[in-house]
Amino acid sequence: MRMRKKKWAEPYLEEHQDYAFSNPIEYKGKWKQLLDCKVLHLEIGIGKGDYLLNMAKMYPEEGWVGIEKDRSAAAVACRKAIEDGDIGKKRMIVGDAALLEDWFDEAEIDVIHLNFSDPWPKKYTHKRRLSSAGFLEKYKRLLSKEGIIRMKTDNKNLFEDSVLYFLDADFKLLSFSVDYRRNEHPEDAITEYEQRYMDLGQPIYQLVAKPNHVE
Amino acid sequence: MRMRKKKWAEPYLEEHQDYAFSNPIEYKGKWKQLLDCKVLHLEIGIGKGDYLLNMAKMYPEEGWVGIEKDRSAAAVACRKAIEDGDIGKKRMIVGDAALLEDWFDEAEIDVIHLNFSDPWPKKYTHKRRLSSAGFLEKYKRLLSKEGIIRMKTDNKNLFEDSVLYFLDADFKLLSFSVDYRRNEHPEDAITEYEQRYMDLGQPIYQLVAKPNHVE
Repeated sequence: MRMRKKKWAEPYLEEHQDYAFSNPIEYKGKWKQLLDCKVLHLEIGIGKGDYLLNMAKMYPEEGWVGIEKDRSAAAVACRKAIEDGDIGKKRMIVGDAALLEDWFDEAEIDVIHLNFSDPWPKKYTHKRRLSSAGFLEKYKRLLSKEGIIRMKTDNKNLFEDSVLYFLDADFKLLSFSVDYRRNEHPEDAITEYEQRYMDLGQPIYQLVAKPNHVE
Repeated sequence: MRMRKKKWAEPYLEEHQDYAFSNPIEYKGKWKQLLDCKVLHLEIGIGKGDYLLNMAKMYPEEGWVGIEKDRSAAAVACRKAIEDGDIGKKRMIVGDAALLEDWFDEAEIDVIHLNFSDPWPKKYTHKRRLSSAGFLEKYKRLLSKEGIIRMKTDNKNLFEDSVLYFLDADFKLLSFSVDYRRNEHPEDAITEYEQRYMDLGQPIYQLVAKPNHVE
């Protein structure tokens, strides 16, 4: 979701470059070392960052990296994390997910989270979707052997298309829901955006997919 | 859907055995000859038979066989077809789909339709679902080379599980919808049951699947 530009964003991000990295090529292959964790999560498109923050509270032993390219949203997410106190095993990257492979090494990530990504409704923009073929090929290289992708969305077209993208890219669907929140999922934080949809009685679509690794 | 027993059902079915067959083993491998058609459709669980009737009107050159095991529902469906006039390229089988392979030969069927099948909610009854593994293996043998399965349901659990059943049984999902009727589908008749759900504003789930034939 695009956000109104915030004047304080740039100086704030400038000041917190040890939390919100701008182009962390030096950590490629070293994130688990940096964060001292066994399991590395990456959320792409964190918006204001509540999901990452809440998940990191629920799973403080795991590493949490969030990417956001909107600099105003990234600054809000950064400030929330900083004001929350200890940054723990969390970090952010302010940049475009197209550059993922500059920052992460093969098989380095265990879980990729895609929450309410931009649906890019027009056909000629579909290739910008974070679940489109080009991205899925990158994710496959970056995911560890047991690595998975978790996706949630309220958007019907994006969800329907994405299921087919995953299958076409030789992922296995591990689970799949057409109304995820009709069941309790205390293990998975509810994003602000998600809560709005739930309040309206709209279904949340969800899937978990894993590459079919060729042995 | 179970129906109240109708007294007139048995004599009616008895009288129309040339339309509503009870155990048509003699037509195995010969349906396209019997119906003089190139494309053979099979609907499993036709209930009162409106879908079959309407589809046969839209596609009168194709062959339409409907199976129903509830004898009262089958009698209603039979009477509707008879009273509608010319039975054309339609027939019914009053019996249990478990016996499909007694009635149809390998690669004989082009399209299998599963409309609002019984969701069999309890875990120990899942194997009775018409989209469960045992049935999918039968369908694979019965479908022609370009043969497909079309499924519609209002039931979330049945749909979610069925997508995984199809994938596990090595089917390819050709299409897939979490709210099928939000778009116009004039090519596909609306069943009575479906209309009730649409009137309530509930989504209809739909998929089209095709076996990955090993060449």
